[in-house]
Amino acid sequence: MSIITLTTDFGASSPYVAQMKGVILSLAPSATIVDITHSIGPQDIFAGALALADAAPWFPPETIHVAVVDPGVGTSRMAIAVRTARYWFLAPDNGLLGGVWLREPAIAKFAIENRTLWMPEVSSTFHGRDIFAPVAAHLSLGVAGETLGPHMLEIRDIDWPTPKVSVDELAGEVIAVDSFGNAITSITEKHFRDWLPPDSPQILCGEKAIDRLVRTYGDARQGERVVLFGSSGRLEIAVVGGNAADELNLRRGEIVTLRRKA
Amino acid sequence: MSIITLTTDFGASSPYVAQMKGVILSLAPSATIVDITHSIGPQDIFAGALALADAAPWFPPETIHVAVVDPGVGTSRMAIAVRTARYWFLAPDNGLLGGVWLREPAIAKFAIENRTLWMPEVSSTFHGRDIFAPVAAHLSLGVAGETLGPHMLEIRDIDWPTPKVSVDELAGEVIAVDSFGNAITSITEKHFRDWLPPDSPQILCGEKAIDRLVRTYGDARQGERVVLFGSSGRLEIAVVGGNAADELNLRRGEIVTLRRKA
Amino acid sequence: MSIITLTTDFGASSPYVAQMKGVILSLAPSATIVDITHSIGPQDIFAGALALADAAPWFPPETIHVAVVDPGVGTSRMAIAVRTARYWFLAPDNGLLGGVWLREPAIAKFAIENRTLWMPEVSSTFHGRDIFAPVAAHLSLGVAGETLGPHMLEIRDIDWPTPKVSVDELAGEVIAVDSFGNAITSITEKHFRDWLPPDSPQILCGEKAIDRLVRTYGDARQGERVVLFGSSGRLEIAVVGGNAADELNLRRGEIVTLRRKA
Repeated sequence: MSIITLTTDFGASSPYVAQMKGVILSLAPSATIVDITHSIGPQDIFAGALALADAAPWFPPETIHVAVVDPGVGTSRMAIAVRTARYWFLAPDNGLLGGVWLREPAIAKFAIENRTLWMPEVSSTFHGRDIFAPVAAHLSLGVAGETLGPHMLEIRDIDWPTPKVSVDELAGEVIAVDSFGNAITSITEKHFRDWLPPDSPQILCGEKAIDRLVRTYGDARQGERVVLFGSSGRLEIAVVGGNAADELNLRRGEIVTLRRKA
Repeated sequence: MSIITLTTDFGASSPYVAQMKGVILSLAPSATIVDITHSIGPQDIFAGALALADAAPWFPPETIHVAVVDPGVGTSRMAIAVRTARYWFLAPDNGLLGGVWLREPAIAKFAIENRTLWMPEVSSTFHGRDIFAPVAAHLSLGVAGETLGPHMLEIRDIDWPTPKVSVDELAGEVIAVDSFGNAITSITEKHFRDWLPPDSPQILCGEKAIDRLVRTYGDARQGERVVLFGSSGRLEIAVVGGNAADELNLRRGEIVTLRRKA
Repeated sequence: MSIITLTTDFGASSPYVAQMKGVILSLAPSATIVDITHSIGPQDIFAGALALADAAPWFPPETIHVAVVDPGVGTSRMAIAVRTARYWFLAPDNGLLGGVWLREPAIAKFAIENRTLWMPEVSSTFHGRDIFAPVAAHLSLGVAGETLGPHMLEIRDIDWPTPKVSVDELAGEVIAVDSFGNAITSITEKHFRDWLPPDSPQILCGEKAIDRLVRTYGDARQGERVVLFGSSGRLEIAVVGGNAADELNLRRGEIVTLRRKA
């Protein structure tokens, strides 16, 4: 019994996902396949990296996480398999695993080059189905990392947004908007605590003032603008019972600032 | 082999759902997890209650149904586990199980309070992952209801819409619109039969006249406005080959009236 | 361990799909159920036929493929079960399997008429749940085709678009748009090769000129308009890093022409 997860930009309910599942089940009929998400925006590597980084740690040890957001498919970009203490991660070498390392350091990195583990015919536009799916299936059956291809020294990283900290200010940015319209920021609970926060900081999202920091949505009144630490430990901007992204017109990249009051 | 179903308002293809699945599989690796739906509108408890009530009865005995539409997450609202003759239902105590009781009476109701069955760290915004998922996994492994927490005497109900009946009129309302644009009403086949319906009642949806009652879509011509009893036994308004909700501008709450002709 | 796939027009994350899964698991608890897609447009038989034809061949032998796009549900249209060398296909007899035959010829065709294999009560609007799901489950448990009902001589076909070929021109049409906005055409790699293509044909999509034929997206610059053979062997129109359907205003039926330059 092994678990293989899928994270792609193919779209919810895409038949491309089903093609990957068919390939996996053809080689590893008893694999349990779990969708992390297929709603990553087209070619949005950062969004894929974030979804994968937040979801992967909740899976049992030995889970094989496959991520395919792959604008460079069919070009010279490498396909990689990375081993951490608990998991396998397979992805194109384009930074898509860059959020994972923040929690799970890489132990061994392999280039996926052994064609005997791929589909017999490999298309130039769908390596998810023709390379990543069969390699994941083979790993789930016990193939060793060394069999996939040579060790790699370097893999590509991603530009992960880090908050700016000063005595008076902690400034991050919106990095995602979830289906409730909550705007998730680059500020983690650790960043916040290390900043030695005041009792009630002034909170600005762009130029819009946020009312206050709360522990959960139900601690504020309907319609109140709040920030809170969400379920992945990141500061989120929410409108209670509403949609913060719509009501405050928030997009990725919007600056979020916490300030000591004068 | 046990089955755990999930009904949430997290959005189709949400990575939050995957986090719940990871937790469940970490504790109960052989569980079969089935999505009922994740497309419930944000915080729309009634829509969740309806989807769950209509889908749950089709699952095998001993299925564990987990529903998370949870505006009060992290506040004093209780988390509950309810046993019926055939199933377990886990949900926040906010009426989300209120549609289930119409078909499956509760036999035993438990407060989910035993923290040893929860995740070691519990966020204040995502009890689906931190409480409901691990408790469902433990139940699937055979933990007894009494282990979850104390018996509850009362749980919260939901205001379930009931049609108004008189000799001349049967009046219900639109309670959901499906992906085909069919508008599903609160009038069940039983309500209809108990009313001793005339051969061809006059049918009004708001002020718009519906052509006739049919047995299935194909019994009418393309574009005809019909009502019929849908697959969950509820009267539906449909436009054959079209989208009734769009064409007749139907929303939840719209009144639907059947009348004896004078 | 057997695999049952589902292809429907019920909408992503539809609770109707969950009802089918509940029925299947009630009869065949160890079946692995895989969604091909539920995002087929309402009653769009051709789109369902295409998604199924492209995804089905990637599944292991003995997979049971169930497809439900069924505008004639509850009327006199037949329900059919077709055996190919590798698979079972179950669908309403309305052409929905018409794309499959291009790759997997039918070996035996059965009318699904044996009511002892259906749900005890059959609705007139949801045969996916009441007929196809239980019959698929029974097939997965080893029931013979002959048990389902009598052999059929003829089943309905679908009007599959075939390119027009002349010495100077190969003309097909857009048959689908994927979630990346790539427009997939009726021209396959085989059609193209049989045409003895020139080195660099002139490419027109409606009246819009396409820059060139490439092997994969990354072979062209951002924003370039290209055609390439996609992962199902069909010629696709793409805008690199963009959305061809939006930018070129492409819809199904748009004519795509390859011409020898004078």
